[in-house]
Amino acid sequence: MTSSTFSVQTTKRALNFNAGPGALPLSVLERIREELLDWRGTGMSVMEMSHRSLEFESINAAAEAGLRKHLAIPDDYAVVFLQGGGSMQFTMAPMNLCLPGRPVDVLHTGTWTAKAIGELKKGVLHHIAASTESERFARLPRPEEIKLSPDASYVHICTNNTIEGTQWHSLPETAAPLVADMSSDIASRPIDVKKFGLIFAGAQKNLGPSGATVVIVRKDLAERADKSLPTLLQYRTHIKEKSLYHTPPTFAIYIIGLVMEWIDSLGGITVIEKRNEAKAKLLYDTIESSGGFYRCPVEIASRSKMNVVFRVAGGDEAVEKQFAQEAAAGSIVGTPGHRSVGGMRVSLYNAVNVEAVEVLTAFMREFHRARG
Amino acid sequence: MTSSTFSVQTTKRALNFNAGPGALPLSVLERIREELLDWRGTGMSVMEMSHRSLEFESINAAAEAGLRKHLAIPDDYAVVFLQGGGSMQFTMAPMNLCLPGRPVDVLHTGTWTAKAIGELKKGVLHHIAASTESERFARLPRPEEIKLSPDASYVHICTNNTIEGTQWHSLPETAAPLVADMSSDIASRPIDVKKFGLIFAGAQKNLGPSGATVVIVRKDLAERADKSLPTLLQYRTHIKEKSLYHTPPTFAIYIIGLVMEWIDSLGGITVIEKRNEAKAKLLYDTIESSGGFYRCPVEIASRSKMNVVFRVAGGDEAVEKQFAQEAAAGSIVGTPGHRSVGGMRVSLYNAVNVEAVEVLTAFMREFHRARG
Repeated sequence: MTSSTFSVQTTKRALNFNAGPGALPLSVLERIREELLDWRGTGMSVMEMSHRSLEFESINAAAEAGLRKHLAIPDDYAVVFLQGGGSMQFTMAPMNLCLPGRPVDVLHTGTWTAKAIGELKKGVLHHIAASTESERFARLPRPEEIKLSPDASYVHICTNNTIEGTQWHSLPETAAPLVADMSSDIASRPIDVKKFGLIFAGAQKNLGPSGATVVIVRKDLAERADKSLPTLLQYRTHIKEKSLYHTPPTFAIYIIGLVMEWIDSLGGITVIEKRNEAKAKLLYDTIESSGGFYRCPVEIASRSKMNVVFRVAGGDEAVEKQFAQEAAAGSIVGTPGHRSVGGMRVSLYNAVNVEAVEVLTAFMREFHRARG
Repeated sequence: MTSSTFSVQTTKRALNFNAGPGALPLSVLERIREELLDWRGTGMSVMEMSHRSLEFESINAAAEAGLRKHLAIPDDYAVVFLQGGGSMQFTMAPMNLCLPGRPVDVLHTGTWTAKAIGELKKGVLHHIAASTESERFARLPRPEEIKLSPDASYVHICTNNTIEGTQWHSLPETAAPLVADMSSDIASRPIDVKKFGLIFAGAQKNLGPSGATVVIVRKDLAERADKSLPTLLQYRTHIKEKSLYHTPPTFAIYIIGLVMEWIDSLGGITVIEKRNEAKAKLLYDTIESSGGFYRCPVEIASRSKMNVVFRVAGGDEAVEKQFAQEAAAGSIVGTPGHRSVGGMRVSLYNAVNVEAVEVLTAFMREFHRARG
């Protein structure tokens, strides 16, 4: 018996389909545990290190290098680790990137773009360039529906909508820089960073624990900001100091680095993407082949590979509650949909493996059969 | 041999005098390690839990309850866990608490109040009510030197100045609410919360890892804020949602709760204070009895029990460098002073035990003797 088998057998792990914070790779957690009291002979936990120490500087640099490698981030883009999650970026992005008299265009696709719009409404010139609200966000806007401003400061997009279960599979063409909330699908598939002016993502879905926000920003755009803005809310502050202007969330950054190493060990983002496609296909196929017992409300072309939403038995809430309870009894965690929309939601972030989805879909077939 | 003895013996731990992030209690780290892959039978790490789960709600509530108990926080004060460290509060406090036409009074005592003033200078009416800058901040202002505005919105104070090694041992009397940056001495001694309007502290010194900021605010003051401020930058947003308006730094909050349990196990803040007094006395006595080989530049009445600054051999930088190197060779970590002031700095946060200070002072005597 190998020690790795041993450790899997003695630790009862849930099948974690949480929408975020979500599952982390088991090997990453084991590594954190192993190094918790003594990181590489320093006699300290990473949590106890000065952020100005050479040791932490190496951890910080490794996390950045991992992101640069796996997301193929060009040199004219900065990568910084901030705090405040995606929500803080709804304020920071317009503060830093708006040009006088030139609106922010928004592609409105659900709850998270609504939050971004909510902050823009507090005095920032903006324009809803497309919206599928009238269809309850069950699909993304089609190219011909998008009416961009000729002079936009930037175009806000949410690449994956966790609550509605939609994901942009090809990006709209825009003259102004795209600013992307990529919180829930960053590092799930290859992207062309050059198409974006700014990418931000709370770490707690595909990158690590909550408490760190990854910001990838084209360096020239970060110079648009007025220097009289609060120091901490200017991207340039963090770019200049390599995320060390003030004490960063050191432990979260360390874990992001470990997750990058894990992606490396699997073979990189193209392998991750294949895994994610296989997982999503398995789950959507199970839904589609259920004769309507399970039903995904999202148009096929807009369906997310990260967050799969569906209703059970025509949306019978009692049956859906039972579904979640029976799943949980089988250690299948995180299946209820967001409290704002109900139904079920299964999140298939990078750390969720194919085997977990096989167990889930077997459960779904059995749950259906028992009511057939 | 007990298992606890075993674990201490097999793990080489540094004597960690870092200024922050700093040492955490060994028993807290061991508990984190023990629960890392499976928190209380959930089959998940705390990092992998939804912040909306009952499990995390209990963790969040326990951390708040621990702070309320040990800091004796009255019911008319809210306790919230934010992000962005103390630095973010230099922006949030004036944004939320300023009344029209009424200045912020600042007691200017060093690098951290200078940072707060730097943010106020970006358009907030303010008044330096006292400053010891002309004496290089080697003491705190005396009561008769403090010139408060008659109509201040609030008075900003930094209760402990990590870089200069000073600490307020009795608070100035003010009519306006005191807003205290307590990052480096929170939970190190009993305080009368009623004397403050707002207390904030980055967790990374006495409370846990970096990435969480504890904010204690009188609820009525949080209502001063204009509702058109960015949602995330209003205290009321986080008060209303019990720190769960958006995804909080869940793992850091969990650790704050564990640190509160550790304080509980020692007997509470009064016991912590006695420990801290014993540690500081040991170190200052070693400095004072060195016949000038070690010299603390801070006036006795203003000396910090958390951060002890001193010069070696009349401030000979070569000797000071050697001091830090030889200390590090003996696993005594974190003795160099802040890069802005040089010299030595030893931080005696709660998790540093008396035995560690005994080893340090023995080293100091030996280092002196070898050059005597």
